Amino acid sequence: MPEPTLLVLDTDPSPRLGRLIGRADIRYTDGAGLAARLPEADVLLVWDFASDAVRAAWPGDGPRPAWVHTASTGVDRLLCPELVASDTVVTNARGVFERPIAEYVTGLVLAFAKDLPRTLDLQRQRVWRHRETATVAGSRAVVVGAGPIGREITRLLTALGIQVALVGRRARRTIHGAADLDRLAAQADWVICAAPLTDATRAMFDARFFGLMQPSARFINVGRGSLVVEDDLAAALRKRWIAGAALDVFEREPLDSRSPLWDVPDLVVSPHMSGDTAGWRDRLAVQFVEMYELWSAGHPLPNVVDKRLGYVPVQDHDG
Amino acid sequence: MPEPTLLVLDTDPSPRLGRLIGRADIRYTDGAGLAARLPEADVLLVWDFASDAVRAAWPGDGPRPAWVHTASTGVDRLLCPELVASDTVVTNARGVFERPIAEYVTGLVLAFAKDLPRTLDLQRQRVWRHRETATVAGSRAVVVGAGPIGREITRLLTALGIQVALVGRRARRTIHGAADLDRLAAQADWVICAAPLTDATRAMFDARFFGLMQPSARFINVGRGSLVVEDDLAAALRKRWIAGAALDVFEREPLDSRSPLWDVPDLVVSPHMSGDTAGWRDRLAVQFVEMYELWSAGHPLPNVVDKRLGYVPVQDHDG
Repeated sequence: MPEPTLLVLDTDPSPRLGRLIGRADIRYTDGAGLAARLPEADVLLVWDFASDAVRAAWPGDGPRPAWVHTASTGVDRLLCPELVASDTVVTNARGVFERPIAEYVTGLVLAFAKDLPRTLDLQRQRVWRHRETATVAGSRAVVVGAGPIGREITRLLTALGIQVALVGRRARRTIHGAADLDRLAAQADWVICAAPLTDATRAMFDARFFGLMQPSARFINVGRGSLVVEDDLAAALRKRWIAGAALDVFEREPLDSRSPLWDVPDLVVSPHMSGDTAGWRDRLAVQFVEMYELWSAGHPLPNVVDKRLGYVPVQDHDG
Repeated sequence: MPEPTLLVLDTDPSPRLGRLIGRADIRYTDGAGLAARLPEADVLLVWDFASDAVRAAWPGDGPRPAWVHTASTGVDRLLCPELVASDTVVTNARGVFERPIAEYVTGLVLAFAKDLPRTLDLQRQRVWRHRETATVAGSRAVVVGAGPIGREITRLLTALGIQVALVGRRARRTIHGAADLDRLAAQADWVICAAPLTDATRAMFDARFFGLMQPSARFINVGRGSLVVEDDLAAALRKRWIAGAALDVFEREPLDSRSPLWDVPDLVVSPHMSGDTAGWRDRLAVQFVEMYELWSAGHPLPNVVDKRLGYVPVQDHDG
């Protein structure tokens, strides 16, 4: 039996797939070559997870891979109607980014509460200016997105004594449904977005939403940039509708150096790095290798995306 | 029976002592007037906890207050040999600052791990530069100072999955003795100082100590400035012996605008604010009023300082 053909939508640094040598015919392509190579692939590894090439190349002629794996949590860059309608299984990198992102969000919450950005500003000016800060214990957070990342954020914030409401698409057990979001956000000190980007969530954080938050509250986005209407957030900060925000993700990445977002007051801009702790690329490669071994042995794959929902549904027993 | 005389070493804003009107003859003094007023006082409230006036005024003529309370955790600015040798009871503000300081330290740990100061620098330059950061879960911290503040820091860091070793003066149960410090610090990612300033701890963090820390480790001081040899810390950072540090306390406060510490690389300088969350002054005043009510009813006082040790010993059942 010939080895399956594994096509890698590659980027630098390339994944360490040494364990698959002799067990897969590994071929590499960039986005421009993807459409021509898709018919020959049994498996597609989307290593360049920031690329839109799959969505562009998928609709076309010839056979298609039976399995597409992306080295990311979000699958919004992959899914096109033809892929959704196909028999192809799509899997994601669930398990790699949860803890790093939860720590990152916790760090931002504490940095805001303790006024750390202002401390660093004053240090640069050599100014000793004592300020009173806030206690996070007892404050209220709303975490939007009840997948593994939102749940891990909830776990860490709760460990600091923060009262967290977790909001998902539909209400179940300890999770609030989307219908509760406005009411919860209106009472929150922290609104944290860790939701997938789908037709239902695109642009959900807009002027209306920021207008119902408390003036003392902060907004943090580690989901996808297009969940937020960036101009509306900038206006809300400039008008002091809310006290601060942090964006790790943007509608267009990398953020252009001329973007007005860089110097919006009380906005922290970071370069889509919340989940990327030392060794993350190796963890992604090892995860794929282990999944490939399951797949080639005929076992069921974990982390299978519900292509119509646009994410990997969390089973209740995971919760 | 005449009301006891309560002398307040005052500063702006003055404490809210309304509940004591009619139950104490409240008089106010600044540091310059303290020596002359001490003989008339039954109780001294050191509201201006940053002042050295008590240590300067205590040795002198006439009677002395039976009770001195300081609106701070540390008592290093008060204690002189004559006060230590006297029958006067000294109490501190234990209970007010623990949680805020523990949150502050946790925020600094996460800010370092997630490279937040560099993110803010790059934002100011409008530069998108992705970096890999560190996971704090599984990292190792040493907390020096096994009082209530050190214990609360230990509790919060442990909740984030950090392995914490707590070091006190003497070993007992889950606390390491001072003899273990070098060995523990040599393996730590974080060394956090929350120790009292005493003859035994003054200048304990010096070139020798920073020299045995790991090059990737960070040092955080929320105790007292004089625990650290500041020039040695600055040199250790400049020579890359350690990766970073944060000082909230200094040998001389406020830190002079010409101090070289303001621009030591990878050093975060903050203005002695780690414990001061909104409402802290009211909490200090309420705490004193409640202690005054105990005292005037003849009940034993809490938070009594062991003047020879220089801090309030933690009972084992507190731990």
